[in-house]
Amino acid sequence: MTSSIQKNLASKNAEYASKFTKGNLALPPAKHYLILTCMDARIDPAAAFGIDLGDAHVIRNAGGSARDALRSIIISQQLLGTKEIVLIKHTGCGMLTFSNDDAHSLVKKNLGPSAAAEIATLDFLPFTNLDNAIKGDVDYLKRSAAVPGDVVISGWAYEVQTGTARQIV
Amino acid sequence: MTSSIQKNLASKNAEYASKFTKGNLALPPAKHYLILTCMDARIDPAAAFGIDLGDAHVIRNAGGSARDALRSIIISQQLLGTKEIVLIKHTGCGMLTFSNDDAHSLVKKNLGPSAAAEIATLDFLPFTNLDNAIKGDVDYLKRSAAVPGDVVISGWAYEVQTGTARQIV
Repeated sequence: MTSSIQKNLASKNAEYASKFTKGNLALPPAKHYLILTCMDARIDPAAAFGIDLGDAHVIRNAGGSARDALRSIIISQQLLGTKEIVLIKHTGCGMLTFSNDDAHSLVKKNLGPSAAAEIATLDFLPFTNLDNAIKGDVDYLKRSAAVPGDVVISGWAYEVQTGTARQIV
Repeated sequence: MTSSIQKNLASKNAEYASKFTKGNLALPPAKHYLILTCMDARIDPAAAFGIDLGDAHVIRNAGGSARDALRSIIISQQLLGTKEIVLIKHTGCGMLTFSNDDAHSLVKKNLGPSAAAEIATLDFLPFTNLDNAIKGDVDYLKRSAAVPGDVVISGWAYEVQTGTARQIV
C-alpha cells in the first residue's frame, strides 16, 4: 500500500530530480560547518539559514539537543572535517511544553508497560527556558572533550512567528 | 568575533525574514508525518522530498539512524501526533566508509585519552550496505514497542548523484 505521503514524495522528488544539476558535490561539507537545529516542522534550514546544497551538515532532533547530537557531531568533525557549529533552537518549541515524567507517563498510558520498559532510562531532554537552553548546550559543547577546543560555536534563537534568527551567544 | 559563516547566516536570514509570511503555522505537523534522513550536506529534504513548511518533522543525524532518532520519534508521535515515518538513507554515505573501531581510534588519536574515555561506550552506528541498512532500520522501528503498530513506515534510498529517491521498503 502506498500512502498519500509516499505518493507526494515520489511525485515531488521526480520533479526535483528532473531539474537536478548538483550531482558532483563532494562528501565533506564545502564550507566546513554544521548546523544543529530542531526537527520542528516550521523550520526550513536551507532557506532560513542560507545553506547552499553541499555546504554544511544539518543535524536535527527534538529540541536541537547537543547531547543527543554528539555522535553526529563527532563524525562530522573527525571524519568529515567540519570546524564550526551553529546551534539554533526556536521559540514555541514543543520541548518547552512537557517534563520527562510527563513523557514517560504518556508512553506508558498510550503504548503500555513493555514500551515503558524499553525506554525506561531515556532522557527526553526537555527544557524550560529557551535562552538558557541555548547557552547550556553551547557550554556543554565547549566543555566536551570530544569537541576540539578551536571549533567555533555560536547559539541562536529562531522565531517561528517572524522567520528571524537572533544570535544569543 | 563573528565568523564568515555567522555573517552569511545573519544576512541570508534577514532576507528570508523580510519575505516571511508563514508565522501562523501550528506546532504539530499539518500532514502528521516525520522524515528521518542523514545530516549529509548534499541533501535538501524540503526541496528533494516535497515538504512544505509546517507539514512534517525532519529528523537528521549521521546516517539517518533510527536508533539514534528514537527519542525524537517518540516525542513526534506521542506529543505532536505524527502517524507516519519516512526513512531516507542515501548513496555515498559517510557511514559506509568507517567502522566503530576506526572512529574510536581517530578520536583517541586526534583528541586524546580524555575524549576517548568520554565516548568509550558510544556506538557510531556505521553500516556496510545501504539497502540492508534501510531494511534493518525499518525493521527496528516496526519491532520497537515504543512505535505504535499502526504507524506507516517506508524506507527509501536517495541518490546524491541524480537527486532521485527510490522506495526500498
